[in-house]
Amino acid sequence: MRFTLTIVVLSAVLALCQGCESVSDSGSLGKKPVNVRLSEMGITLPEVATPVAAYVNTVESGNLIFVSGQLPIREGKVIFTGKVGGGVELSEAQEAARLCAINALAAIEAQLGSLEKVRRIVCLEVFVNSAAGFTGQSQVANGASLLMQQVFGDAGRHARMAVGVAQLPLNAAVEVAVIVEKR
Amino acid sequence: MRFTLTIVVLSAVLALCQGCESVSDSGSLGKKPVNVRLSEMGITLPEVATPVAAYVNTVESGNLIFVSGQLPIREGKVIFTGKVGGGVELSEAQEAARLCAINALAAIEAQLGSLEKVRRIVCLEVFVNSAAGFTGQSQVANGASLLMQQVFGDAGRHARMAVGVAQLPLNAAVEVAVIVEKR
Amino acid sequence: MRFTLTIVVLSAVLALCQGCESVSDSGSLGKKPVNVRLSEMGITLPEVATPVAAYVNTVESGNLIFVSGQLPIREGKVIFTGKVGGGVELSEAQEAARLCAINALAAIEAQLGSLEKVRRIVCLEVFVNSAAGFTGQSQVANGASLLMQQVFGDAGRHARMAVGVAQLPLNAAVEVAVIVEKR
Repeated sequence: MRFTLTIVVLSAVLALCQGCESVSDSGSLGKKPVNVRLSEMGITLPEVATPVAAYVNTVESGNLIFVSGQLPIREGKVIFTGKVGGGVELSEAQEAARLCAINALAAIEAQLGSLEKVRRIVCLEVFVNSAAGFTGQSQVANGASLLMQQVFGDAGRHARMAVGVAQLPLNAAVEVAVIVEKR
Repeated sequence: MRFTLTIVVLSAVLALCQGCESVSDSGSLGKKPVNVRLSEMGITLPEVATPVAAYVNTVESGNLIFVSGQLPIREGKVIFTGKVGGGVELSEAQEAARLCAINALAAIEAQLGSLEKVRRIVCLEVFVNSAAGFTGQSQVANGASLLMQQVFGDAGRHARMAVGVAQLPLNAAVEVAVIVEKR
Repeated sequence: MRFTLTIVVLSAVLALCQGCESVSDSGSLGKKPVNVRLSEMGITLPEVATPVAAYVNTVESGNLIFVSGQLPIREGKVIFTGKVGGGVELSEAQEAARLCAINALAAIEAQLGSLEKVRRIVCLEVFVNSAAGFTGQSQVANGASLLMQQVFGDAGRHARMAVGVAQLPLNAAVEVAVIVEKR
């Protein structure tokens, strides 16, 4: 279990290191179906849970889809908790951000029926549960940003805001909200 | 004064508890004028104060209205101050979030002329002034989310982001920004 | 160097004090080209640096331009670092917010070709790296808000959200994200 996590984190770090390379050929991603791309990356989108409270995962307005802040939840459980730069390592936080982004993709697919209908990832808001003195919020956010680019190519490149917050719901390490433009 | 506050908080908690029920019949809210609904809920929208600084309460762009971050202000005074999970109880914080949402409604009405012109509450950004270790930001945010749903029915269900911040203007306990779609 | 900074900060404070006056004649700004206005204000827009990570400075969607969170960077270096209300004075933080806004203008100009194509500054999200007990986030944000109004007149008046965060990337004192509507 512990080993698996390490491997996942390592491959995430490797993926981050190869970021610039994957940018250069991202133009060609447009022709490959998003689902194929996801499965090549070994990503299975999770079932989307209905929020318990009086809000929804996604709202469509015009061509924009607003996706609620996503936590690093897998199988109903927040699996990255605590303060980045405190108990949570940078590499784990990047993996947490990536998982938030995957959960956002699941919500977008549930809204649109297919990720093929995504024209553009418009904007990511990344909130990092930060220990005092931790200033690597941009690097954490790259975990989510890079995933979007790997999945959608140039259409996955977005505007972004990353900040360090005092606390997050359920003590999550990262929360990511997304705005998407549909075709 | 102290008594009144307690009663208000209690009724807010009751309202929150009844949340699921009110969801089930929210479809029928669409036919009841929003103002009637508000008065049934005992809510009188406040006068909208002009911001002191170089910004405005609302900006319309296309069909979207962006509402500035609202504080839990009543009659010109921030009435819920301090850190949630510290001096501020969860139930008070929910009431604070609800008051922010009411102030947002006042700003939206001032912009559109009537709340009947709201097609959809698109998105809520909820910032909770959080004590170390407080992780109930989602529950706090429900105070605002539930109000929107009670007032607008299904059209009040929105995407949402809730985070715990280090501090808020004027030491407010909660701040809520809103995006609305007009008809 | 130290002297220059003081002078800049002083003039920023003076500018803030004159805020209400400049509002009153802001209607006339619409006829003066933005570039002329900027040069009268002594502002030269910087070169826009390409983000290192997998995101971009701006994304256009419909008539909206989403500008990534801007830091108080000048010539590639964050020049206002630390906690506002701690090591960073209010006047410095206002200057930092103003610099974030100038960097946003540079990004917008790079996207649109000319700032004349800005129809409206829609929304500012201002994140202030705040020391415990500092509650003047609105005043800090005024540094950015006032600049927008001085540059664009009434079209520069925007919706706004200002919060105090635990930490910011590269230990920046302020971060400002912007949404703009183009003509």
